[in-house]
Amino acid sequence: MFEKRVEKLRKILVEKNIDGFLISNFYNLLYLTGFKTLTADEREAWGLVTKNNIYLFTDSRYKVDNKLLTSKLITPNEGLIKHLTKIVEEEKIKRLGFEGDDLKVNELQRIKDFLTNVELISLEKLIIKIREIKDEEEINNLRNACNVADQCLKDIIKIIRPGTSEKEIAFKIEFWLKEKDYDISFYPIVAIDKNSAVPHYDTRAGNNENVKKNSIILIDYGAKFKDYHSDTTRMIFVGKQSTEIVNIYNKLLEAQTKTIEQLKTDSSPVSVDQYCRKVLTTNYNLSTTTYPHSTGHGVGLQIHEFPKISFTSTDVLLPNQVVTIEPGVYLNDKWGMRIEDTILIKENKQIEVLTKFSKQLLIIDH
Amino acid sequence: MFEKRVEKLRKILVEKNIDGFLISNFYNLLYLTGFKTLTADEREAWGLVTKNNIYLFTDSRYKVDNKLLTSKLITPNEGLIKHLTKIVEEEKIKRLGFEGDDLKVNELQRIKDFLTNVELISLEKLIIKIREIKDEEEINNLRNACNVADQCLKDIIKIIRPGTSEKEIAFKIEFWLKEKDYDISFYPIVAIDKNSAVPHYDTRAGNNENVKKNSIILIDYGAKFKDYHSDTTRMIFVGKQSTEIVNIYNKLLEAQTKTIEQLKTDSSPVSVDQYCRKVLTTNYNLSTTTYPHSTGHGVGLQIHEFPKISFTSTDVLLPNQVVTIEPGVYLNDKWGMRIEDTILIKENKQIEVLTKFSKQLLIIDH
Repeated sequence: MFEKRVEKLRKILVEKNIDGFLISNFYNLLYLTGFKTLTADEREAWGLVTKNNIYLFTDSRYKVDNKLLTSKLITPNEGLIKHLTKIVEEEKIKRLGFEGDDLKVNELQRIKDFLTNVELISLEKLIIKIREIKDEEEINNLRNACNVADQCLKDIIKIIRPGTSEKEIAFKIEFWLKEKDYDISFYPIVAIDKNSAVPHYDTRAGNNENVKKNSIILIDYGAKFKDYHSDTTRMIFVGKQSTEIVNIYNKLLEAQTKTIEQLKTDSSPVSVDQYCRKVLTTNYNLSTTTYPHSTGHGVGLQIHEFPKISFTSTDVLLPNQVVTIEPGVYLNDKWGMRIEDTILIKENKQIEVLTKFSKQLLIIDH
Repeated sequence: MFEKRVEKLRKILVEKNIDGFLISNFYNLLYLTGFKTLTADEREAWGLVTKNNIYLFTDSRYKVDNKLLTSKLITPNEGLIKHLTKIVEEEKIKRLGFEGDDLKVNELQRIKDFLTNVELISLEKLIIKIREIKDEEEINNLRNACNVADQCLKDIIKIIRPGTSEKEIAFKIEFWLKEKDYDISFYPIVAIDKNSAVPHYDTRAGNNENVKKNSIILIDYGAKFKDYHSDTTRMIFVGKQSTEIVNIYNKLLEAQTKTIEQLKTDSSPVSVDQYCRKVLTTNYNLSTTTYPHSTGHGVGLQIHEFPKISFTSTDVLLPNQVVTIEPGVYLNDKWGMRIEDTILIKENKQIEVLTKFSKQLLIIDH
């Protein structure tokens, strides 16, 4: 599996005439080698892919246990740059690529200062674009993540009643997952009534609204299964709702469902994004500006990956991508609704909605 | 409070003849403005400090509610660079500084491509070095974080008995904190017996060892209080322990305690680091290489901040810094021990150990 992934990268490196490619990004390293450190943002490990070797540089706090990798120990006396200098000479590397969308300005400067005989080439999105297309193991993990998330919400809705707070619901989601040795994809967004009108509402920092007799509850959450993420948004209604609310919900649902269908035949994310907004605003004449976020995004080792499904996207929709479709309607200071699924695009104009939790209008009555 | 912090930055900018300073780092922006986005690594907000203004750039998913800030909306048509171009002209900015230790190579390239009339200056560690010295509010938050962590461990040790697993203990710590609306500083390291010999043992990825009749348990954990972290490591012993283990624990404790005392008078982190290793290896003749990590580090909005207390440190120990002291002894494939406190360095050669959980040999008998 890892061999195949590295081969994909090497093929691109050959095309670009690159002799070695330095990997700084935590997720890209995890994808290519299966190796990960405790934190994603402390540069505790680096990778280098050359024609014949895959080097992994890390310090003695970690054990590297993978036969594919040539492990190099980082010590206070022998840092990354000393190792690179040696390898560049041994392997006669002339053109060294690096992740221009991950490496920091001062990190590049330091490498430049020492590797004076090497041409340093900034490359962007190389591995993350490979990661767009999921392999079998990844799809299994994503399917499992979505399945776990579905089970979780089924249990969580049972505890929702007037008086339950946003943080309580978020906490129960997190607790349900972690108790079973899964993890959250991100801290759940649980937004009640007015708060649901803020698309990126921060449940931790917010006013911790309680469920009331006729509340609208937005829950945007995900489960992690073996480092892979799911992403779902569901609306939960409490007690009697106005005809307006019910109608808008059903229209939003129709737009979301139709857009998912669109993934079967439309390979342009820009067109899918436009399609969804059009269904929502023109056909149904919803008196709202459309949602101030993209229609969807890829999901994988990170919650936001390629392809982007937005009107500035330059990506292409292809089989074995896993993406979200998540249109919303937001009425400032009143309420907001969003419906989101995680979907696998398959061969032969097929799709598989991985998040299967029902989208029928869900009204809780107590 | 934020005004004072920004004033400290502006003073440095004047010294360096910088007209504007672009802030990309999530924690630095949070420190200076109190503003934070949902994720730390997705560039959802930027800051710019000029002589007269503090600009905040973010998109419509967020609400900016702070009179100190001049808020600029990022839209698909008007991104950061368009805003910068305008401001640079309006405020006649000639020398624009940026965070060279945070900005990515391709981000700088894009700014360079558009801001052609501005000199771009890479500055490192500017705000993180200001953050070394904690103000009163920060010290209160850190004290509270340490206090919460103390209370947590007191409850957690009650559930430890033969059969309890590493993940179970880690899980209980996390949920004790989250149930009370606090957070973990980092995923707890709970390492039993052999696993404790790995200084950066990953409890989530490990073999989930169970507590046995005569186990050694290392717990490295922390609580978050209003974005501020605590950091503690304690050893817990189960049942009868050999004289060797008891002796080494007491020696490690003496080295740790003496090193904390050293903070009262020694302002050199290099010397404090050496002192700790010397006490451990020479005075007590422990037949082990010393620990393969630093003796300590600053703690604040992030778990690892300045000053570093290691033999490569270039920092200075000063009043109102909050640091850890955490020597360890690791016997490969046998066991490891580490003792860690979070300590406030005060004026007049005073220190305050903020983590107060007892360090007396703690033996659980069932």
